[in-house]
Amino acid sequence: MSQMEIKNITKKFADVTALDNVTLKLEENKIYGLLGRNGAGKTTLLNLITNRIFPTDGEILVDGESVIENDSALSKLYFMTENNYYPEHMTVKKAFTWTKGFYTDFDIEYASELCEKFSLKLSQKIKTLSTGYTSIFKMILALSCNVPFVLLDEPVLGLDANHRDLFYKELLKNYSEKPKTIIISTHLIEEAAEIIEDVIIIKSGKLILKESVESVLSQGYAITGSISAVDSFTAGKNVLGADTIGGLKSAYILGHLDKSGIPEGLEVTKPDLQKLFIHMTNR
Amino acid sequence: MSQMEIKNITKKFADVTALDNVTLKLEENKIYGLLGRNGAGKTTLLNLITNRIFPTDGEILVDGESVIENDSALSKLYFMTENNYYPEHMTVKKAFTWTKGFYTDFDIEYASELCEKFSLKLSQKIKTLSTGYTSIFKMILALSCNVPFVLLDEPVLGLDANHRDLFYKELLKNYSEKPKTIIISTHLIEEAAEIIEDVIIIKSGKLILKESVESVLSQGYAITGSISAVDSFTAGKNVLGADTIGGLKSAYILGHLDKSGIPEGLEVTKPDLQKLFIHMTNR
Repeated sequence: MSQMEIKNITKKFADVTALDNVTLKLEENKIYGLLGRNGAGKTTLLNLITNRIFPTDGEILVDGESVIENDSALSKLYFMTENNYYPEHMTVKKAFTWTKGFYTDFDIEYASELCEKFSLKLSQKIKTLSTGYTSIFKMILALSCNVPFVLLDEPVLGLDANHRDLFYKELLKNYSEKPKTIIISTHLIEEAAEIIEDVIIIKSGKLILKESVESVLSQGYAITGSISAVDSFTAGKNVLGADTIGGLKSAYILGHLDKSGIPEGLEVTKPDLQKLFIHMTNR
Repeated sequence: MSQMEIKNITKKFADVTALDNVTLKLEENKIYGLLGRNGAGKTTLLNLITNRIFPTDGEILVDGESVIENDSALSKLYFMTENNYYPEHMTVKKAFTWTKGFYTDFDIEYASELCEKFSLKLSQKIKTLSTGYTSIFKMILALSCNVPFVLLDEPVLGLDANHRDLFYKELLKNYSEKPKTIIISTHLIEEAAEIIEDVIIIKSGKLILKESVESVLSQGYAITGSISAVDSFTAGKNVLGADTIGGLKSAYILGHLDKSGIPEGLEVTKPDLQKLFIHMTNR
């Protein structure tokens, strides 16, 4: 039974508060989407979880143990970062055996199968890979590690639509065969919505939402009509944001919708997760 | 009346044929989506159109004039490329006046307004911009140039969902106020589908489709059921590809659908543009 607790984490860089008192509990064997705007603090949180940087305040526990300089806790985590730590001339194949030195459950055979599926040559040098293939290489490492927590930072960067589609399929296959906790940080929210179970939204360093995708989608709705009619309907409701075109307004709301209470002339639609996210996090 | 003709363009690099006999006519004041997998030849085509490289065969005409070393034709084109040609210490503001030296219709006031909307500081040095802000900077240049042809290569690279949403809105506003021909090359097909009118699909250097998005969507459908029932229904049809899970199969088809002819036990759904693209271009 693996679980992760993030307790009152604050991280300051000089006079900037990157994360502000974030508390979260991550359950075993679930796929989380870690969402936020550029600069919201997503990568800072992932760096803190994996002990690459230290919190200003608070603590992070894996199975009850602090992650700080703790090899036993850290060996349960794999972080696919934006950075590339591999030596200049290392090939893909060599990187697999090298990684197995640190992660003893690394599955070289499975990693090689994924290379075949993504047309990544085992003999290729890592530094010569394109942006897309660098993502593919790093994602294959992450999926092959067999640890309880896999953290993916922008895993589909530079991938074309076909490779993104294949990645989502292989991720779900991996997850169903060897369940684990997966945290995906991504800007492609609508695509990720199809594979994540719970969504964690960070805005300007603060946690603003942690809920199942299903629940967010069931509560989110948009109401469209004349500006005055929309304004009077939405008064007192949890309005996330609005678009106005000419005399028409669409307001995005999170809350229980009583369909019988919709005045004539107003239309209700169900926005997708990305649209709701945009309105929750716009400045 | 501006138009562009791409006539029998072939481009070889050593023994690789990057583009193979591509012929295309681009109409005035239309938004095109140039789609293809990584390595399909999209950027090569954009480089040929803007005379950054020379074709092995064929010609490209803008208003009847060849683009090769032709300032009059090239002054009608603006290309937002992946590369950054600006000097090390140049600020955003300086880049605007500098660009106006080449593109006399460049609208500095409008460019500054867009900077405000995207929170890009005019005083910032270009080389210090993040990936997302580099895209924003280059996209603002492209939208402010006021030329008949604007070519955008991966314009939303590194942008978060909010900035992508804002970009699509500003692009449409720009297009409706000052109509022009816009070619967008992107991997985020489902988002682009909302703003492009015609789709141009390149596969392994060959043009495989040029059609309105509306027409592609109206012709594309998926049929799902037992493998044998799907196979017998799709025999002789234009099958783009298929997914199989256990004994179930979904086949993607392009063509006229006669709804009365669907056998019992088979289900019809309408895939989105990205899904159709994936099946058209999978190897």
